[in-house]
Amino acid sequence: MNAEIISVGTELLMGQILNTNARYISGRLADFGINLYYHTTVGDNHDRLKECIRTGFSRSDILIFTGGLGPTEDDLTKETIADYFGLELEINSECKAELIERMTSRGYQCTPNNFKQVMFPREHCIILPNPNGSAPGCIIEMNGNAAIMMPGPPWEMEPMFEASVVPYLQKLSSCRFYSRTLRIFGRGESQVEHDIQNIVDAQTNPTIAPYAKAAETTLRITARCADEEEGDRLIIPVMDAIYQRVGEHVYSSRGLDMHEVCAELLAKNGYKLAVAESCTGGMIASRLISVPGSSAWFVEGAVTYSIESKMNRLGVKAETLEEHTDVSAETAKEMAEGIRITSGADIGISTTGYAGPTGAPNQIGHVFVGLSTAESTESYEFHIKGDRERVRASTTLNALNLLRKLILSKGMYKPDKYMI
Amino acid sequence: MNAEIISVGTELLMGQILNTNARYISGRLADFGINLYYHTTVGDNHDRLKECIRTGFSRSDILIFTGGLGPTEDDLTKETIADYFGLELEINSECKAELIERMTSRGYQCTPNNFKQVMFPREHCIILPNPNGSAPGCIIEMNGNAAIMMPGPPWEMEPMFEASVVPYLQKLSSCRFYSRTLRIFGRGESQVEHDIQNIVDAQTNPTIAPYAKAAETTLRITARCADEEEGDRLIIPVMDAIYQRVGEHVYSSRGLDMHEVCAELLAKNGYKLAVAESCTGGMIASRLISVPGSSAWFVEGAVTYSIESKMNRLGVKAETLEEHTDVSAETAKEMAEGIRITSGADIGISTTGYAGPTGAPNQIGHVFVGLSTAESTESYEFHIKGDRERVRASTTLNALNLLRKLILSKGMYKPDKYMI
Repeated sequence: MNAEIISVGTELLMGQILNTNARYISGRLADFGINLYYHTTVGDNHDRLKECIRTGFSRSDILIFTGGLGPTEDDLTKETIADYFGLELEINSECKAELIERMTSRGYQCTPNNFKQVMFPREHCIILPNPNGSAPGCIIEMNGNAAIMMPGPPWEMEPMFEASVVPYLQKLSSCRFYSRTLRIFGRGESQVEHDIQNIVDAQTNPTIAPYAKAAETTLRITARCADEEEGDRLIIPVMDAIYQRVGEHVYSSRGLDMHEVCAELLAKNGYKLAVAESCTGGMIASRLISVPGSSAWFVEGAVTYSIESKMNRLGVKAETLEEHTDVSAETAKEMAEGIRITSGADIGISTTGYAGPTGAPNQIGHVFVGLSTAESTESYEFHIKGDRERVRASTTLNALNLLRKLILSKGMYKPDKYMI
Repeated sequence: MNAEIISVGTELLMGQILNTNARYISGRLADFGINLYYHTTVGDNHDRLKECIRTGFSRSDILIFTGGLGPTEDDLTKETIADYFGLELEINSECKAELIERMTSRGYQCTPNNFKQVMFPREHCIILPNPNGSAPGCIIEMNGNAAIMMPGPPWEMEPMFEASVVPYLQKLSSCRFYSRTLRIFGRGESQVEHDIQNIVDAQTNPTIAPYAKAAETTLRITARCADEEEGDRLIIPVMDAIYQRVGEHVYSSRGLDMHEVCAELLAKNGYKLAVAESCTGGMIASRLISVPGSSAWFVEGAVTYSIESKMNRLGVKAETLEEHTDVSAETAKEMAEGIRITSGADIGISTTGYAGPTGAPNQIGHVFVGLSTAESTESYEFHIKGDRERVRASTTLNALNLLRKLILSKGMYKPDKYMI
């Protein structure tokens, strides 16, 4: 079974928004073993959209549309698809009643335009409820083809996909893909590819796909299988072979982000953390606090961007700043120790560096990370290339990676390499 | 002139990466007045890619490809396009020398595979240098068509696009699009659309495109014009009409983010800011510090996620916490006042709330923002819908918006509405 994604919206062609829907749906189709060979994006234009529908059904069984279900005249996805299938749209009274109820409960009046959103073909059509917006989705099934339509806003599309489209697809597909995602830090994509080339070449099921993120590498190992158990049986030996080559750089085998791994290690070990950030300016704290339950181990953060706050808040000594400047190993250590002691945490971590864009070019990206426990306080030096946001993001990752290694070496909790 | 973007890479179809390249290129093509009616994404497959090239050139003059220029066998964009045009690839000795130099300077040896990256047609071909990677891009021009090929990683593609593709496109295009982006907070997309419907309907040049972001609305007003001056002459009257309807909600007419507007207002007024964050956990600080030059006005941030840190760091009183809990107007006020006074800032801002996912469902999203100056300290209450990240992001935006309004009402600097 082949599917194809058709994203409808001039705002995508103008570069105003990122097509996160296509990525989301693609990933989920892969989970269900449904082949996806094309994405197409087309504007709010009847003729071009109709041409895409024709081309799409000439090569795919299922077309998945996002966007163009709104109340305005520009929104013509459903109208064009009904036209393609030769079906008439008529108001669905149940959906109309729900829409009126929804609008009135928010203090709006329904205009005739709004009722466009509750018009569907009387036959060949499954309506998909939308608890998060005014436009229901629908599936039109005819001649062995299916057109699945969902609204464009991701916060409407994703819940609708999970609640209504997933059960529909599951009925259609017998096999599935199952993936494990190894996340790697500290070794570039091309190096990793080189390290594991002959493992990749020897594999057909599972397949291994490397891809690069800023400062990171990810390997997605994907098995075509009947279920998760068979998937892991196929994947684990390949994972082991990869670990033999680059295992020291793997920080998660479940696709977790670095801050999620740190959160798990902190929680399982019962360590309390405090963070003092200069150049990262709250980025480390913000990532860690994005993890549910972080209140159990995140004691306190300080964003000490000014020299005064480094002294007043963290107790960095004036002599240290004078002798070594605020971007130095010594300052990083005093910051980490200062936040740890004053907050009562087990571990203190700090960052200080030049993020740019102002400052001497050879200084930009020069960064120190401090790490302090009751036993010792260390600092680590980095030279990071890139613009201000890249320096900050990469410093954040490096700091979290140091924290991860510290906890792994020090903590009682030893995670299974397949489960972190 | 019509262009089309063809993104090549199975990792895109697997949902492993977001297609940020298509968005970037789309936005830039709009700037140059080049029509873009389609994006297509296709995997690393010769036959399907060739079919996309055929379809593409049947409807567009210029095809812009990203991805598939790497050294592996999977990478076949250039090979397939040369095949389509009936051109042979041969090694370009200058590029080969550069590649060897690049690889050896990094301690790698060139393998025969690598030389695939420096093979180009001898004629009809413009080579595009790649200072950030090993694969040069190229443009093949034949029969009035152009195929522009760039590597997939955005940090290689974007600089190549700006340095080599922009001058190429500028020569081809006489008119351009010029846009103004109004950013709106506190009024939903459908309300804004409704407010300005007859302005939108009356316009053909400029056009007005509304689109929604989480908790925000954006209006992009785009004029087809000869230059920026003519663009503004067309756009300003339309902007004025929109301001009459929804002006109080517009926070930028230059497409700035909320934190960038705050940064500008703080800098221009010479105000110093300090931030005390609980549920937003460093997000406000991190956004503000992403702005270059923030050290001039960002004094200090505190991520006081625990009750102890609210007391110890900010001086929130135990009685306040006991009587009103840590999520209350009183606590928000004491946090804002505490960070302002202890840091010596002019303005203190604070957040405290239930971000979820744990906690009583009717409490999740209940948030207070505190705002303190030497004159007064106020608190503001919000009920935000959505998951943990949505609550945090929306709280951040609300807090920054309150900060923005405070500075506008209090500050000496009164920004021109067209220039903020």
